[in-house]
Amino acid sequence: MCGQCGCEQPPAPQRLELHQWLLSRNDHQAAHNRAHFRSHGLRSVNLLSAPGSGKTALLEQLARRWPRPPIGVIVGDLATDNDARRLQAAGARAVQIRTGDLCHLDAALVDQAFAQLDCRGMDLLVIENVGNLVCPTAFDLGEERRLAVLAVTEGEDKPLKYPALFKSADAVVVNKSDLAEAVDFDRRAAFANLRAIAPQAELFELSARSGSGLDALIQWLDGQSS
Amino acid sequence: MCGQCGCEQPPAPQRLELHQWLLSRNDHQAAHNRAHFRSHGLRSVNLLSAPGSGKTALLEQLARRWPRPPIGVIVGDLATDNDARRLQAAGARAVQIRTGDLCHLDAALVDQAFAQLDCRGMDLLVIENVGNLVCPTAFDLGEERRLAVLAVTEGEDKPLKYPALFKSADAVVVNKSDLAEAVDFDRRAAFANLRAIAPQAELFELSARSGSGLDALIQWLDGQSS
Repeated sequence: MCGQCGCEQPPAPQRLELHQWLLSRNDHQAAHNRAHFRSHGLRSVNLLSAPGSGKTALLEQLARRWPRPPIGVIVGDLATDNDARRLQAAGARAVQIRTGDLCHLDAALVDQAFAQLDCRGMDLLVIENVGNLVCPTAFDLGEERRLAVLAVTEGEDKPLKYPALFKSADAVVVNKSDLAEAVDFDRRAAFANLRAIAPQAELFELSARSGSGLDALIQWLDGQSS
Repeated sequence: MCGQCGCEQPPAPQRLELHQWLLSRNDHQAAHNRAHFRSHGLRSVNLLSAPGSGKTALLEQLARRWPRPPIGVIVGDLATDNDARRLQAAGARAVQIRTGDLCHLDAALVDQAFAQLDCRGMDLLVIENVGNLVCPTAFDLGEERRLAVLAVTEGEDKPLKYPALFKSADAVVVNKSDLAEAVDFDRRAAFANLRAIAPQAELFELSARSGSGLDALIQWLDGQSS
């Protein structure tokens, strides 16, 4: 019964059960994806950030600079295929997933997209998630590593405010370093926050726009076991 | 049965039924909130954007410049009470909701927070949602109007890539106008995208950091019926 107007409210369906079922089904598919990526000799990365942090610009640079091109990208957005087209123009093989109103990629969507990707002669697959600092965190896509991006324009406190995502990352890119001065970015506070929340993560500071600082990230990606 | 390894998968609980139940329960509470806000003579606004678009900076300016201070703010974040403290320092009455791992505010959380807000002598209530361009869209909080924020640093195509949120907005603020030149912001493309996706919305261009352009927004907020 509603405590404010006294009307009858219908009883709740099994919310927890559904959540657990979704995650367990996803984990099962993610294990298949992981085996599938490995059987193709692919390093695989799940790339996560807020909207507009520069994930696609970072991948454009990576597509041009990866030592053994082309790279493969599966890219998720609610709508448009803008990102896949940008990445193809940069030399990547890219497949777009349009999620409609879904706020994250899941392992089944990635499996379907992977079937459309020609991965011959390719050793790096990046899955560019929907721009969202919350929901993608819980969904394993079968990736080997997670890479989170934080733009200096978003502010120093985002790792504290969205801790789960940063805690789950193997590395964090601090992007748009060319704008740090213009936005009075407090570099010391940002890195202290990242080290407090995500002590496990490698940290990279770069500008995807200029390409400055990208080499260290490429080295880290290249050092992954396949 | 799993199509890849042949193992048995448990059957799905009622996913659609749960989603409908959650939204219908939320809509019911939102109607109570709306009546509650009105009975206190409050204009109410749901403020939505991606993380780091400058919602809190905008509210700090608003707290200082609103013609009949103080303003009230209910602010949602997964973690920390940084934003409530910033807003209180700017003169607002602010209540922080920490959602844990929840990716959006809902009407019940807002109802609980509103009970903690002293709204005597106040005529404007802003609910600052969790930074997320997807999930908050479906949840009516009982607000009269929705205000979306897009920062120039996020790129011109975000209205196309996250259409549902912009379609639901009564007004859109294009923020961080002081950085437009530094990021090569294509103003014409951004406004064309906004007009195509959200023809119903009033558009404001401003810098929450400098305060430039804020007067037109204050006028719009002040013109709302209470």
